[in-house]
Order: sequence, then C-alpha cells, then structure tokens
Amino acid sequence: MGRVTERRTVVHVDTADGAVHRVQRPDSLAAEEPLEIRVGPAGTRQRPPLAVTMRTPGDDLDLALGFLFTEGVIRDAHDVRTAQLCAGDQAPNTYNVVDVALAPDVPAPATDPARNFFTTSSCGVCGKASIDAVRTRSVFDVAGDPTRIAASTLVTLPDALRAAQRGFAVTGGLHAAGLFTAAGELVCLREDVGRHNAVDKVVGWALRAGRLPLAGHVLMVSGRASFELTQKAWMAGIPVLAAVSAPSTLAVDLAAEAGITLVGFLRGTAMNAYAGAERVLIDGRPVAEPPAARAADAAPASAPGPPR
Amino acid sequence: MGRVTERRTVVHVDTADGAVHRVQRPDSLAAEEPLEIRVGPAGTRQRPPLAVTMRTPGDDLDLALGFLFTEGVIRDAHDVRTAQLCAGDQAPNTYNVVDVALAPDVPAPATDPARNFFTTSSCGVCGKASIDAVRTRSVFDVAGDPTRIAASTLVTLPDALRAAQRGFAVTGGLHAAGLFTAAGELVCLREDVGRHNAVDKVVGWALRAGRLPLAGHVLMVSGRASFELTQKAWMAGIPVLAAVSAPSTLAVDLAAEAGITLVGFLRGTAMNAYAGAERVLIDGRPVAEPPAARAADAAPASAPGPPR
Repeated sequence: MGRVTERRTVVHVDTADGAVHRVQRPDSLAAEEPLEIRVGPAGTRQRPPLAVTMRTPGDDLDLALGFLFTEGVIRDAHDVRTAQLCAGDQAPNTYNVVDVALAPDVPAPATDPARNFFTTSSCGVCGKASIDAVRTRSVFDVAGDPTRIAASTLVTLPDALRAAQRGFAVTGGLHAAGLFTAAGELVCLREDVGRHNAVDKVVGWALRAGRLPLAGHVLMVSGRASFELTQKAWMAGIPVLAAVSAPSTLAVDLAAEAGITLVGFLRGTAMNAYAGAERVLIDGRPVAEPPAARAADAAPASAPGPPR
Repeated sequence: MGRVTERRTVVHVDTADGAVHRVQRPDSLAAEEPLEIRVGPAGTRQRPPLAVTMRTPGDDLDLALGFLFTEGVIRDAHDVRTAQLCAGDQAPNTYNVVDVALAPDVPAPATDPARNFFTTSSCGVCGKASIDAVRTRSVFDVAGDPTRIAASTLVTLPDALRAAQRGFAVTGGLHAAGLFTAAGELVCLREDVGRHNAVDKVVGWALRAGRLPLAGHVLMVSGRASFELTQKAWMAGIPVLAAVSAPSTLAVDLAAEAGITLVGFLRGTAMNAYAGAERVLIDGRPVAEPPAARAADAAPASAPGPPR
C-alpha cells in the first residue's frame, strides 16, 4: 500500500451571501511524490536512472513495469529478472526508487539524452528530447480485434469508475484508469495524480498477471484523452479507449491509425465516437460502418477513386 | 497564430429515455502536436534537442522561452540571442521545432545524461532534493512579496478565466493559465492541452515583455495544482497560485516552503487556502496569521518549545 492521501490543515473561506466565513480544518490531499525508475542488466552493481515520474505512491512496481512496457523497453514479464522498490540514495528511505534488472537477452534502453525521460504528473511525454523519440510501435494487432460494446454498456462505465475511486472521493484530486470487459465488468482500477501513471499501473498489473494483450477490453479514463494515453492503450493491445472528457486531435488521429475505438465526452446518457465507431453497438448494430466499408461507399468500383 | 482547434467528424450517440439516437456531425477538437525545443550556442550549425512537449500550437516562442526560464536554463530575455520556429527534420514543415541560440556568455544546458537538467532531476533526487535544487536556482524572493488579495476578488477569477477561454468554449479540451493583478484584472491568458504549457506560455510572454518577476500577480489555473506548476510560479516570482481543483501534497509543501499562497477548490463562492493564507483578506484582514506569528503563538518565551 502506498501513501495515497495525506492530511493537511487548510483555511476554508466562503463568501456566500455577502457574509464571509472562514474555518481552519483538516483536508485530505492526493499524495504526489517522485518515483525514479532505474533499469539495466542483472548483475551490475548500480543501474542508471531512466526516468522520474511524479506519481501517487502505491503499485509502484506495476507503474515501473507498465511504463517500461508502454515505452517499448520490455516486451513481457520474462524480460524482467527482478524489480524492487528500494531506498535509492536517500536517507531516510523514501521508497521512491524502483530498480529493474533486465533478463540477459534484453537490451538496456539507451540513456543518451535524446531518449531520456523526465515525466511530470500531467504529461508522460514531456522530457523526451526529440519528436522521433515520442512514437512507439505496438506489437499487437488492435485493428483486427473483433470486440463490440453496446452504447448502453458504455454509458454505465463513468459511474462504475467513480464508484470504485476511493481516493477521488476523499481528495477530489486523483485521476483514474479502469479496465473493463466489453460486458462492463470492472477488472482493474488504479488512481494517480497523473492519468498516464494510472494507465501504466493498469498495464503493469496486466503484464505481471500474464494478461497482455488486453484484447476484448475497454480502458476508461477520467478527464481527457491525449496522444500518450492512446499510445499506451495501443501498446497494451486495448481496442476501446473511453474518456469522460475531450480527446485531442493527435489522440483521434492515432486511434484511427491504430484501429482503436476512441469514445469521448462519455457522460450521462451520451458520448461521441471519434474513431472506430463500428465497435459501438445500438440494438446489436454498429453505430457506423467500418472505415473500409465507408471507403468502398465513397469510391464504388464503377467510379474513379478519390484523389490521394 | 497556431492551429488551436481542428475539426473532425464524430458519431454522437445518446441513449436517453431508452430510445437511442445517433448522428454524424462535425466537432472541434483541441489541437495537440509535439514541439521540440533545441538549445545551444549561437553560431553553431545545428543545436541539439533538449526536450519535446506535447502542446497546442500557438505562442510557441513564448512556450519555449518560458520552459527554458522555469527550468533555469536562461535568466532573462538577454540570455537568448535568437529564437525561431523552424521546420526541424520534418517534411513537410510542421513548424514543430523552436530553435534557441543562446547569448555568448550563457552556458548551454549539458546534454551529457549525467549532467543535463532532466537527468539531474531524474538522478537520485526525491521530492526533498528536487525542492532544494529549485530553491537554489530560484532568484526571486516570493516569500517577501507584500501582495494581499481579497477573498471577494479571488472568487471572481474562475469566471473571468473561463469567459476569456475561447478554445475551451469550442472544444471542452483545453486547460488555461491566467495572469491577474491583485485587483482581479486579467493581464495574460494562454490555453493549451497541457496546464504546464499554458503556464510556460504566460511566463515566456512575461519574460519577453520584460515583466519578470511577476510580483504582485495571481496565477489562476484550470484543473489541479501540481508540484510542477507551483515550481513554475516560484521561478517566475508569482506570490499567489490559485486552482479550480485540488492541489497535491507536494504542491502544498513547496508553496509553504517558497512562501507562495496556494488556493485550491476555488469555485462558486468558496476556496481553500493551503499555504500562505495570510495574503487572503476578508474585510481587509488576513484570514490567517503568517507562519512566523503562528509559531510564536505556539511557543511563547515563557513556555518550553515544542519537541523538534
């Protein structure tokens, strides 16, 4: 267990009705601490740091392994010889370092600055030095995943996510990533000050449980859907990514390229399908034709094709 | 001007009242693209990449210079010889690279992984060590800033921020950072898919306008307040940081250490002051005593001090 929340004293002020009230009271905050991830071959005395992420303590091994997997450093649990939470160079021990020893045949990630990572709780991509370093490629064929999910199931996911979020209820300051089956059953939920950390914790859990790729599953995230979350879903083989709030352009473009169904503004009774709408069913029928069918509609055999 | 929003076609689904409706329609999305920041001495043919951030295009020079300033690479606008948006290695030109040539006397950030800023940050530093490092690099005395702000002014800031957010109204997917005077007048607003980018754009604008340090100002951010936002506020000399949503533990701890007033859950008529509450006024009086006064209360001269 980690230090998910901590208490602080705050001054609460309310200016309602012209009268102004203030009261000093305790408040629970989402814990945020740095986690350093060290990676290198087994048998060396000190492995170099690869990344620091600002995260909520807890499930740190899952976070480290999920991060290494979604960044393409490891391909499965067998690529890791040992992974342990350790003291690092700090005294007293803060348990803010995870040290990962790779199996003998796994190449250590380059530590040249162009591929170095420093991630914040709000962005898992910032800190990579070049645009080329941002893209990773998935080994899984998500586009071919035959999963379908009813719109009536999708609309149940936000409440299910929120109901399972113990930390958010206390702090209002934690994001969540929930892994669901296509029938809407919650399989794994993780909370973190950083959305990308919450996703890495889910992926790391699945990696250690031997459940990758996560074919047939839906990943539901609080807040918005960014490029990096879409990329992590792709890396883990997840065919459906759903977000409470808005996606970015790059999230939509990457989802379309990967064959991921991207649902945004999933609130109340409604949603927007930004990519892969053919996986979303109403009364058992897709809400949209798949891209290939639409392309065929647009360019029948007897007509000239669209300009490329 | 950047490509702040872009249009995509979405399938909108609503399951209200048992009946299920779907309609294909255009939707505006928050643009997200990578920005590579290259930094080095003037007079060299190719400067190395230092960082990539996933950002909403627009105000890219401000973003790059604000980033370099809040990371401690440059100290003022004179440290920069030239800064230009360029093509980088991409074809066609995506305008996703900012190339910064430093003035002759400014040391380039080391790109040796053992020495560069990111790797220094990710080399064995826990929260405590990071905070110490920030304090030594922060050149402004924020704790001594005599700014005071009325609670009745603070409660007006979220609406003022939202009203000025053109991108959010269209997309629902953009964060904002707004710089206000202590009288509640909006000085500068920037929107971005990343909160930290929005803050860097504000700081870069102030840097180029010769307005640093931002003494006497309030930085209002949408969403939550993290460690990194508090750090950026400190670097820019901003005495009051206000957020619509929750702060993290590390944000509160850093604000207390820096002497920054940190206000969270600023919504409707209410707010929580997590640090520096003595700057928040009700009827002209502080809602809390400053820390020194509180410490004196706790340990009067005639009584034994608390255990250390």
